[in-house]
Amino acid sequence: MTAHAVAARVRAAYWPPLVQAVRSLDQHQPQLALVLGYHLGLNDTHGTPGSGDDGLASTLCLAGLGACAAGADHGQATACALAVELTKDFIQLEDDILDNDFSRRGRASAWRAFGTPATLLTIDVTRALAFDLLTATGPHPLRAARHLQRYADAVARGQAADLAAESRPWTGKNQVTLAEYKHIIEDKGAAMVVAALTLGAVLTDAPPVILHTLTRAGTQLGMAWQIFDDLTDIWNAHGPRAFSSDLARGKKSYPVITAISSGAAEADTLAELLARHPATAQDVRTAAGLIEACGGRHATEQRVKELCAAALDTLAHPDLDRASADDIAAIASVIGTRGTESTLTVGTPAIRRPEAGMT
Amino acid sequence: MTAHAVAARVRAAYWPPLVQAVRSLDQHQPQLALVLGYHLGLNDTHGTPGSGDDGLASTLCLAGLGACAAGADHGQATACALAVELTKDFIQLEDDILDNDFSRRGRASAWRAFGTPATLLTIDVTRALAFDLLTATGPHPLRAARHLQRYADAVARGQAADLAAESRPWTGKNQVTLAEYKHIIEDKGAAMVVAALTLGAVLTDAPPVILHTLTRAGTQLGMAWQIFDDLTDIWNAHGPRAFSSDLARGKKSYPVITAISSGAAEADTLAELLARHPATAQDVRTAAGLIEACGGRHATEQRVKELCAAALDTLAHPDLDRASADDIAAIASVIGTRGTESTLTVGTPAIRRPEAGMT
Repeated sequence: MTAHAVAARVRAAYWPPLVQAVRSLDQHQPQLALVLGYHLGLNDTHGTPGSGDDGLASTLCLAGLGACAAGADHGQATACALAVELTKDFIQLEDDILDNDFSRRGRASAWRAFGTPATLLTIDVTRALAFDLLTATGPHPLRAARHLQRYADAVARGQAADLAAESRPWTGKNQVTLAEYKHIIEDKGAAMVVAALTLGAVLTDAPPVILHTLTRAGTQLGMAWQIFDDLTDIWNAHGPRAFSSDLARGKKSYPVITAISSGAAEADTLAELLARHPATAQDVRTAAGLIEACGGRHATEQRVKELCAAALDTLAHPDLDRASADDIAAIASVIGTRGTESTLTVGTPAIRRPEAGMT
Repeated sequence: MTAHAVAARVRAAYWPPLVQAVRSLDQHQPQLALVLGYHLGLNDTHGTPGSGDDGLASTLCLAGLGACAAGADHGQATACALAVELTKDFIQLEDDILDNDFSRRGRASAWRAFGTPATLLTIDVTRALAFDLLTATGPHPLRAARHLQRYADAVARGQAADLAAESRPWTGKNQVTLAEYKHIIEDKGAAMVVAALTLGAVLTDAPPVILHTLTRAGTQLGMAWQIFDDLTDIWNAHGPRAFSSDLARGKKSYPVITAISSGAAEADTLAELLARHPATAQDVRTAAGLIEACGGRHATEQRVKELCAAALDTLAHPDLDRASADDIAAIASVIGTRGTESTLTVGTPAIRRPEAGMT
């Protein structure tokens, strides 16, 4: 089954209650519901309805729950999926402020469209909504809340390390190593995927081997996703982008770290250019060429493939419910094969999206 | 017993573990611990130790717990006090970003000193720390977490309404009424005081009359505090300030709403001036004079006195533990009598603080 088909099938289970949750917010906080709905693709900046986004976080959560084969009831499963989706949303809303990102999924990021104050308050109410949904049901509400909190905390920790790394030099003994990068993206990029995949196991008291296997698969998948994002920040299907947020900010991303430490002749020139925070189309093209010449692009593509293959391997574990593990694998396979433009959209004609990433 | 003495006595119970909690953060997130420590007055921007702030939130929490006379164990009481203190901290950290406030308690606000990204991440880890402390102990961890979450949510709701009110006109049918103002500050200003005062009652299964009485006292106290803050944003002990953040932003504060709706001859001139967002010392002086002429200053001072008196009356309830209720009353009495400069500092020589407010 393709990722499209999986997401479409799973989406049917939680999309109506997600829309309903946003509407419940609308009764008391119309301005903040507008911001959240906009981020979810449910409406534009004026409130005109849209079709909504992929909801891959919920899909992963429900597939992870299914993989445990432990039979949570429908209401509990839906509450978990919504809580994970909303947690991912408030993390993304904050992420765009932290990284000064102007766009997400091809439209203006929420803080650009509505301002930072309204977005911060939307983060607060979305967090509260996720907490309420998660703790209103199930046998272990506190455990569930702790689980999500723990991973949301890891994301903040990774973000802090990532921001701190931006101001560090590209070369010399204080440079950011690949091992450090790995730690950062485990927190920043993979934690939320792990949280989504494992929440069901935590809630249904799944055996340790299941929890361990899903944690491992989530880490591999999440890291692949993040490293792939590094790639698509610099290149799209047609070549180097006109602007790379990562290069302009001095972000220590996978293609650049591997290029700089490659020992290739072009590495010094690249380091000098990066130190000037390339922001023009010409400079991005030059930097992208140098990264490629140093083998950084190839190494990144290889690493994404390796991690995806490793995740599929992990998901083949015999103790996982097969159908659900295959659903997760179908979503995983999108990362390695989708090229540099994501066309994954569910329930509506596919729209080409210039920005890749977890939706 | 004076508020100083109460705070000093109560502070001894939770200050060392609070310092320890910030230090535990320092091990993994030194930059964020620096921001939190700075906000708490534990260190300056370079990490040089300071004496720390008043910690009135913890004091109210412990006094509230004591008022129930239900005997929570020491570890649980301390955890509650720290969680309340840290919750108040992350709310304030966010508040200063939302309101674009450059200073708090006479020093640069955290986002001005460390930037918005570092402050947002500090909010995240502080929130996580509060949640961990609160849910690690006691018979009702989830109930405690829900209680604090509920009030933190109310603060966000009040902030949203407050920000939305800024862009509304001073006169006409869309003007902000005193009834609306009351709703806003119940959420924005009083919710955290209520949360602090009542957490102990929630955790120790205190009888409904106790919970109700403490909720009532907290609302009265918190509203008095907020209205007093409105006053000190425009005037200090020497007269009008050189700059009023509220007037510059078009904040619908108590002195201004009452002045505008007074029917006094000066109200129209005042409304015209306010619409221009007075930001110069000359304009603030003129606006302050007009507000005073319309009776806005007097009405505000009266309302603070009434609310403080009402809170003291509520705290006289015979079912409350007398000594603890007196502690709360001592803190309450600071609001009405402290004048327009707060000198309440604990454990160190008093430092005159230009900014009043809940610390």
